[in-house]
Amino acid sequence: MKRRLLVIGIGAGDPDHLTVQAIKAMNRAQVFFIPEKGAEKDGLARIRREICEQFIENDTYRLVPFAMPVRRAAGDSYGAAVDDWHAAMAGIYGRLLAHELDEDRVGAFLVWGDPMLYDSTLRILDRLKSQGGLDLAVEVVPGITAIQALVARHGIPLNAIGEPVLVTTGRQLRDGFPRDADSAVVMLDNGETLRAVAEDCDIWWGANLGLPEEMLVSGRLRDVVDRIEANRKETREKQGWVMDTYLLRRRK
Amino acid sequence: MKRRLLVIGIGAGDPDHLTVQAIKAMNRAQVFFIPEKGAEKDGLARIRREICEQFIENDTYRLVPFAMPVRRAAGDSYGAAVDDWHAAMAGIYGRLLAHELDEDRVGAFLVWGDPMLYDSTLRILDRLKSQGGLDLAVEVVPGITAIQALVARHGIPLNAIGEPVLVTTGRQLRDGFPRDADSAVVMLDNGETLRAVAEDCDIWWGANLGLPEEMLVSGRLRDVVDRIEANRKETREKQGWVMDTYLLRRRK
Ligand SMILES: C[S@@+](CC[C@H](N)C(=O)[O-])C[C@H]1O[C@@H](n2cnc3c(N)ncnc32)[C@H](O)[C@@H]1O
Ligand SMILES: C[S@@+](CC[C@H](N)C(=O)[O-])C[C@H]1O[C@@H](n2cnc3c(N)ncnc32)[C@H](O)[C@@H]1O
Repeated sequence: MKRRLLVIGIGAGDPDHLTVQAIKAMNRAQVFFIPEKGAEKDGLARIRREICEQFIENDTYRLVPFAMPVRRAAGDSYGAAVDDWHAAMAGIYGRLLAHELDEDRVGAFLVWGDPMLYDSTLRILDRLKSQGGLDLAVEVVPGITAIQALVARHGIPLNAIGEPVLVTTGRQLRDGFPRDADSAVVMLDNGETLRAVAEDCDIWWGANLGLPEEMLVSGRLRDVVDRIEANRKETREKQGWVMDTYLLRRRK
Repeated sequence: MKRRLLVIGIGAGDPDHLTVQAIKAMNRAQVFFIPEKGAEKDGLARIRREICEQFIENDTYRLVPFAMPVRRAAGDSYGAAVDDWHAAMAGIYGRLLAHELDEDRVGAFLVWGDPMLYDSTLRILDRLKSQGGLDLAVEVVPGITAIQALVARHGIPLNAIGEPVLVTTGRQLRDGFPRDADSAVVMLDNGETLRAVAEDCDIWWGANLGLPEEMLVSGRLRDVVDRIEANRKETREKQGWVMDTYLLRRRK
């Protein structure tokens, strides 16, 4: 028999980001796998638990916390580091599912934002499926991404009229501003990117969007970069981690 | 006194895409402005009405349908055509709000997908605000986009590991495959683009996502392009319009 797995986007911080589809899916699952990792552990695992308490109407579901291995520093090969980490995670998921999810039951992963975006859950499950052994049926439920939370709070459109937008990472942006698009939305930044952007841009920045500690800054990049960096540093020092996302638009 | 306006993303077709935040927002509004245009009129206006009936708990709200002017063919100047159309729309919105929304009331626009993405509502309201006259407070509620509906139904991530994704339009893609990204997600296509893509790509295509008429096709572009075009044409003939979105990933 198949094990059913729901990979459910829970939005980027605000529990009200949950969709009706996500709530229905959560109410179909009996076992929730809750990742715990490093400094974010307390904050993000707690939010997942609260979402379960708030939206699940039965009291028969079970939470299964599990430790995430730390990804080794990328060094020369980002691809190889990620590959090793996915292999380790596939092993962990395989054991988790075999031990904690009976064959006729429904399990769920609650993924931050939307599982489609800079998240490894679907890739790890794919790797596990391709290894054979477990018979898995995976269903994906979309969720509000940090990008959407960002621009909604700033009250702006993502794209300029009829124009493209590059969704990218801090790491990629450090190699240069996109050629194909005047708008770029950046995630997974380590805080060392903005100062390296040579273009004259407007920026809409947000940290801890949807959470009580939310911060927003917007303006011409060169005018606000100091303020953004100070805000980022302060939050990081206070809570031990910071999640930020920003939209850059080239000025013309 | 200020008029309050909620610009609420309702997801890309499935009423279960609605977020808790959107449902709460809908229950705060007294007047809903429902655009009606061309061939899509019946389908999309009907879905908006049904969403109101399903999720609003009072029976004192009012629907105000309004006609959308047709945008003139772009001809030489896409920018000028859009600009004219925005000006016309700002006039229509201004009259609608002045006549149909009392100053102490809350109005709402229910926007397909997320208001951030290839939608003019926020831009028209901005123009109206900058014209002065009406004192408007606008709040945005994000919604599941067609992009998210697409990749969730295909069960795949949007980005390759750590890699960027270009969000773009059929019109833009006809000028060439992006240089900055191996993944491009395409909206607003007129059906004449796929055949012009010279790159060897994989495609994940979806039409009428979240609706009863949903169709999905995936595979190597050159192998499935005929099937996609046939599906697209058939739907268009049957229901008078078709909405499709697709992700292209360059093969390596
Ligand atoms: C591993 S990615 C996951 C993205 C997630 N799947 C989504 O759909 O938003 C984590 C990155 O998302 C962004 N992010 C997530 N939540 C955020 C929040 N509440 N505020 C600001 N940025 C956030 C940050 O750029 C962070 O580095
Ligand atoms: C004017 S744009 C609006 C996009 C919307 N704001 C969003 O967030 O998805 C309309 C385009 O969105 C895409 N689209 C919207 N709904 C869709 C659906 N249910 N299925 C497939 N594509 C859809 C199509 O590419 C269509 O041409």
